[in-house]
Formats: sequence, structure tokens, C-alpha cells
Amino acid sequence: MTFSPLEQSVLAEIRPTKEELDRMYALADRLIADIRGSGKADGMMVGSVARKTCVHGDRDLDVFMLFDPALPREDLEREGLALAWSIAHQYTDIIREKYAEHPYLNATIDGFDVDLVPCYQVKEATDIQSAVDRTPFHNRYISSRIGDFTDDVLLLKQFVKAGGVYGSDQMTEGFAGYLCELLVLHHGGFHNLLKAAAGWKPGMFIDIEQHAAKWFDEPLVVIDPVDPCRNVSASVSDTKLLEFIELCQGYLKSPSKWFFYRPPICILTEEEVSALLKGRESAFLAITLKTPPYIEDIVVPQLRKSLHTLVDLLKRHEFVVIRADTWMLEDRSMLLFELLVDTLPAVRFHAGPPVTAHVNAAKFIDKYIHSDIIFAGPFIRDGRYGVELPRRYRQASDLLSSNEVFGTALGKHVKHSMKEEFVVHSGLECWQPGFEPFISEFLQKSSPLVRIRRAEARTS
Amino acid sequence: MTFSPLEQSVLAEIRPTKEELDRMYALADRLIADIRGSGKADGMMVGSVARKTCVHGDRDLDVFMLFDPALPREDLEREGLALAWSIAHQYTDIIREKYAEHPYLNATIDGFDVDLVPCYQVKEATDIQSAVDRTPFHNRYISSRIGDFTDDVLLLKQFVKAGGVYGSDQMTEGFAGYLCELLVLHHGGFHNLLKAAAGWKPGMFIDIEQHAAKWFDEPLVVIDPVDPCRNVSASVSDTKLLEFIELCQGYLKSPSKWFFYRPPICILTEEEVSALLKGRESAFLAITLKTPPYIEDIVVPQLRKSLHTLVDLLKRHEFVVIRADTWMLEDRSMLLFELLVDTLPAVRFHAGPPVTAHVNAAKFIDKYIHSDIIFAGPFIRDGRYGVELPRRYRQASDLLSSNEVFGTALGKHVKHSMKEEFVVHSGLECWQPGFEPFISEFLQKSSPLVRIRRAEARTS
Repeated sequence: MTFSPLEQSVLAEIRPTKEELDRMYALADRLIADIRGSGKADGMMVGSVARKTCVHGDRDLDVFMLFDPALPREDLEREGLALAWSIAHQYTDIIREKYAEHPYLNATIDGFDVDLVPCYQVKEATDIQSAVDRTPFHNRYISSRIGDFTDDVLLLKQFVKAGGVYGSDQMTEGFAGYLCELLVLHHGGFHNLLKAAAGWKPGMFIDIEQHAAKWFDEPLVVIDPVDPCRNVSASVSDTKLLEFIELCQGYLKSPSKWFFYRPPICILTEEEVSALLKGRESAFLAITLKTPPYIEDIVVPQLRKSLHTLVDLLKRHEFVVIRADTWMLEDRSMLLFELLVDTLPAVRFHAGPPVTAHVNAAKFIDKYIHSDIIFAGPFIRDGRYGVELPRRYRQASDLLSSNEVFGTALGKHVKHSMKEEFVVHSGLECWQPGFEPFISEFLQKSSPLVRIRRAEARTS
Repeated sequence: MTFSPLEQSVLAEIRPTKEELDRMYALADRLIADIRGSGKADGMMVGSVARKTCVHGDRDLDVFMLFDPALPREDLEREGLALAWSIAHQYTDIIREKYAEHPYLNATIDGFDVDLVPCYQVKEATDIQSAVDRTPFHNRYISSRIGDFTDDVLLLKQFVKAGGVYGSDQMTEGFAGYLCELLVLHHGGFHNLLKAAAGWKPGMFIDIEQHAAKWFDEPLVVIDPVDPCRNVSASVSDTKLLEFIELCQGYLKSPSKWFFYRPPICILTEEEVSALLKGRESAFLAITLKTPPYIEDIVVPQLRKSLHTLVDLLKRHEFVVIRADTWMLEDRSMLLFELLVDTLPAVRFHAGPPVTAHVNAAKFIDKYIHSDIIFAGPFIRDGRYGVELPRRYRQASDLLSSNEVFGTALGKHVKHSMKEEFVVHSGLECWQPGFEPFISEFLQKSSPLVRIRRAEARTS
């Protein structure tokens, strides 16, 4: 396993120091001792720190509290939180309850960002009652095998992070840490993985333990070594997979430091945005709402789901969406839409029942034949009766401001937040404080490799 | 076979008089004698006059000149036309050459509109060299069977004409005379046909001689009794079939004279059209061109084909077409388009090669990565690279005025005419002289039954 001078210099910067790891392990040991001392649960350090695949400066420490699986779920949540509170209080006052599938505690201790997570201590990974119960199994699987490949995992994580294709779970639809570890293990190192992945196509299937027990149709399938019914890369989207493939190809063809250090995005000024919007002459609309009080892993998928359902709503009302994207800040979140046009004519076609559905067809004709609101019809088109009616929403902003949005499949927490309040912005109004990097990237959208090659050209 | 008082009164008006028929037969006999006298061909009267299924006032007389099938095709055209000219000249100076699949002669004689059509006298209908060769077989088949059903055919023809679903060949995508005769024969009269057809659905299959030798997927299939490989109703569109079905249902439910006398269309004034266009707020565009010098049966299908290919062109350039239609006058023809909007933004998405098509993908990126004309990209969407480029045609009228129209699948003669000259009209400019009835119908479009029921309401 020889790394290039570039890779060695990257590793020298990202490898955690011994002091760093020792401090974290010491803190973890104290917390685990506290958990065990309570007599209520076992304790276990998990995540990249536990596997030594964290990077220099990483402050995230995950400590799990493993309870007896006989404990009812409600009790687990209540007792788990109570135990976490009682332990965290001994160390700090900066404590927050967070909500994933279950509540857990996040505390800032000695400058570290510590998660205290209650889970069930099950015998087999297939006995899990909640997703977090699986983590201890992942931890054992990776820890016992990763040995020589720690540097390879560090490089790969840095590579996917800089390339913008890293991401836990649904959030960025990208490559999570555990997936990176498995890929490095399976292909035998960073270089071998890149060479293999450069030839991947969507539809790739990897089953390290040769025990797949279910069929998956996601673009990339990596069967979980601890669960034959789970695809570790279920959340990797087609686009993120292709972006990863192009990064691998690009790096093998001509590597540079920009594959490990994300090229800075050019944050635009309001004047530049105004000029770009005028140049495109399309229609920009944004919805902003209060960010629901849940973690990113929960909120971002819901924002994305809400984005898609609102794109569908716009399409149903004949507004053509050029692009749409969403972004979450601590306090506010944004759903951004670029439309071909924001104003449609008064007339719209309304399709009715099939001509051969006699009863409904007759009702439809009766309803409209002497109506004075119609423009034309009823007439036959594509086997159905239809009429031309006045359009209810001629402005896309009126549609997005209307109650129609609540008739769509919004994410649950997003819907709740929007029921309280949301704002529709048009054109340059979309340039809301905090969303400047998001909108700047939206307007300068390019693939990761293109971004890297442009950074190379600028700095060469 | 008893007809209702309404039907009897209709028949009394549309049945040809004996004097009328005698005059036409006398003329036909003289023409046939002339043909035979030339020693070059046999003569035969065909069409609805020959079958006595013409209506009162019908002036169309079809006389075929049947040549030896051994004659080469070019000679048939030359000798056929020469013979037709020499005969017609003895009767009139009003003579026009017309062009269907082959040239033929049209002459005005004693107030009748006479077609003199050269064809081959083949032994079997399956030996035909051109569509016109089949006509004598149709004539013999119907003449020998229609006997008692002549009135039924007259009523049906009047019914489909008034309903706007009559039409020879491709022209109106409707029910031709021969098809009406076959349907009446098959179902045993006008009433029985209407009762049967009220229950039809697209996919209807009728094979009178039980000899179908080919599979057809048109909405209505009626196998030609003289040719097992031909669908007589091939040109009946889905919409025209459904309109016929609704007319049958409507007539059975509640008959009125409007089923036999087409309700007059309300021809709009320019002020009314202006108000309607303003009300709809959509975008109207029309192309007018010189009508190609061929018969309707040839030109109208080509206009329709040209309409469809130009609708596709508009769609490819992201213009949404609400409706489109075409109309042919003696001198000018029109292709009319109603669009959702006529102006699109500067930015457009241009899709490139699949990301996994390595060579082309690399070329695409090289082409655009440092281009200064792009708005954004290259980025990955739906498995492909793409860029956002300036739009070439922001105005639909610019697109329709451009050379792009000649890159589409225009009808041959339409293309030829447009190469010479065509005009693009916008908005109220579409209201061109002669096209007032067409545009009036376009703006008041309704199904035949709706038109009839409204006429009943107005006159009751």
C-alpha cells in the first residue's frame, strides 16, 4: 500500500493525533464507566472515533447506552434519557435533547460534541428493534477488520467529502462513513476502490459476506455484512453515484489537491445574483419556513420530499420547473424553484371522464353544456370529454401561497412548520440572509469534477 | 323497416328524384359509350350515383376508364388523360387536371361535376396496381346487395355529414360513403346500426365476409369485403369514432332534426375574436401558405402531418401547445397553434451524453467547462451531463419563421409550397380572410352532440 506524495501530505493533515485520540478515549471511558455504574445499562463507544477512522479535528464522540431488550420501548426512551441527563449533568450545562427515530442527548463536554444514545443490546443484528441497535454490530464488524486500511478510509472520506458526495443517510443522498469503510475493505484499499469504481455503472451490486437475502433496485447496492436484508447504500442517489464515478475517473486520470480540499464556492453578491437572474429571465420562487426542531437526518429528507411534491403540484398546474432544490439552516429552511414562466393564461384544459363511461360522461356534459364560465367545450380529446375553463392559479406564487400546498405529500414536520407560518418569495427576494451560499451554488451548479477542474485552472 | 316521421321527412328532402337520376345516368351512358367507342378502354359509372346512394342535389358523377393491366403505368397515365381530354372536350371547356395517386380529369358538364378517372381493369381486387383499381369492385359489391337499404344509407350519410364525422379518406378522419354502406348492410339498416354503435368502444372489429388476412390496430376495423388485407375505416380517428358513438347514443336517447341538419356555426366578428383572445390570454400563432395544387384528399392529410410535426418542433423547444388545427381553402391553407405562452426565458437546459459514455462525456465536458456562454454546468441530471445554455428561439414566432421548420417532417407538397413562401401571424393577425369559419369553430370547439343539444336549446 504505497500512497503518492500528494496523498501522504493529505494524510499528514487529516490523520488524528495520538493526543487527540487519547483525550477522546479517556472521556469515553469515563462516560462508559458512569453508564455501567448506574447498573441500568452497558456502555459502548461507537462511530468513527471508536474505529480510529475519524479525521484530525473531529469532535464527534458517540457513546451508546445498551439496555435490556425486555424493557418496553417507552421505558427505554424515558429511562435512557434520564440516565443520559444524570451523567451529562456531571460534566456540562450545554445539553440538548435531539430527535432521530428516538430521542437522545447531545452534550458539549471538554470541547467535544458528545451524543449519548439509548439503544437495545440485542444478540443478533437481525433482532434489532430500531436502527440505532444495529450500530454496535457495525462497530464490531469494522473494528475487527479495518486494521491496515485506516489511512485508506481516511483518504476516501476526505475524497468524498471534498467531492460533495459524502453524507450520512438520506441527507445528502451520498456515501456515509460506514459505506466508505466497507468499500475500502472490500476492494483492498483506496487505490483499488477508485480503479474499480471508475468502471462502475448504476446497478452495481456488492455483497461482501455473500449472504444477500433480499432484492434491491437502488443504483448502488452494498449488502450490510451484519444484515442480509439491508442495503447500506440505499440512500445513494443515481446522481451522487455518477458523481462519485466521475471523481474516481478524474482522480485516476489527473489527481490534484482539489480532490481532497473542496474548492471554495464563489459566494455571489446581491448585484451579481440580480444580474444572473436578469440574464436567465426565468422565474425564481422560494418558500421559507421555520426549520422543524429535529436533526438534519430527519429534516432534510422531509424537505426533499416536500420539494418533490410541490414540484408535482406546480407541474399539475402546468408550471414548468427548470430546477428545484432545498436547504436547511439552523433556524430557517428554504424550498427553491426556478420556473420557465411564472404567469399562465386564463384558459386551461380540464379533462373529464372517458366518452365510453356513459353515466359519468352524461353528467359531465350536463354540468358544462350550458355553463357560462367555460371558454370552449365539452369536446373529445384523447378518448375523454374535456372543457376549457378559467384557470384558478395564473401566478405560480399564488399557487404556492394557497392551501393547495397542504393537499400535497409534504414531510410531516415540514407540514407542521408550514401550517404555523411560511413565506413565498419571488425573484431577488429569494436572496434571503443565510441562504447566500445555497443560492450561489444553485446559480453556478456544476458537477464535482467540473468544480475541481475549474479550481485547478484558476490556481495553475 | 319503419322510419319515424322525422326520418321520413328527412328522406323526402334528401332522396334524389327520378329526373335527377335519369339525367345523370343518361350523361354517364354517353360518356361510357364514348370511352368504349375509342377502342382503348372500357367505361363504368361508379360512386354513390351508380349505387343510387347519392343525395338530392348531388352533382358528382364518377366515370372510370378501365384499361388493360398489361399497359405500363406511364402509358396508362398518358393515354388515360389523352382519352379523357378528347371526350370531355366534346362536352365542355371547363376542364381541370387533378392529382390523386394518379392524374385524372375533372370536367363541368351540364352542371354536373364529372370525374374521368383512368384505372386498370384487373380480374381480382387483390391484383390492383393503384387504389382506384379497387373502386369498380366496391361498386359491384354494394350495387348487388344494397337494394332495400338505400334509404338507410341516405339517412346514415346525412347523419354523419351533419354530425361532422363524414369524410372520404384521410381528409376528415371520418366515415366515408363506402364505409356507411357497409355498416348499414352489416347491421341491417340505419336503426340497427345506431343501436349497435351506441355500445361500441374503440377497438371495434367487423369482418362481413369473415376473411380478414391481416391484423389492424386502428380504433375501428371494418375489413373490406373485396380485400381481406384492407381496413375500410383505417382513416377513422379515435376522436371521430367516439364522436360517432356519442351521436348514436344521443339520437337514440332523444332525436331531433339537428342530427340531420348541421347546426349553423356562429361566425364571430373580429371584435368578438379579439375579446375571446384577450379573455383566454393564451398565445395564437398561425402559418399561412399557398394551397398546393392537389385535391383535398391529398393536401389535407399533408397539412395534418405538417401540423403534427410543427407541434413536435414547438414542444422540443419547450413551447406548450394547448391546441392546434389546420384548414385548407382553395387558395390558402392555415396551420393554427394556440400556445400556453409565446415567450420563454433566455436559459435552457441542454442534455448531453450519459456520464458512463466515457469518451463522449469527456468531449462534452471539454466543450463547455471553460465556455463563457453557459449559464451553469456541466452537471449531472438523469444520468447524463447537461449544461444551461442561452436559448436560440425565445419567441415561438421566431421559431416558426426560421429554417427549423424545414428540418421537420412536413408533408411533401406543403413543404414545397412553404419553400416558396409562407407567413407567420400572431394574435388577432391570425384572423385572415376566408378562415373566419375555421377560427370561429376553433374558438367555440365542442363535440357534435354538444353542438346539437345547444342548437335544440336555442330553437326550442
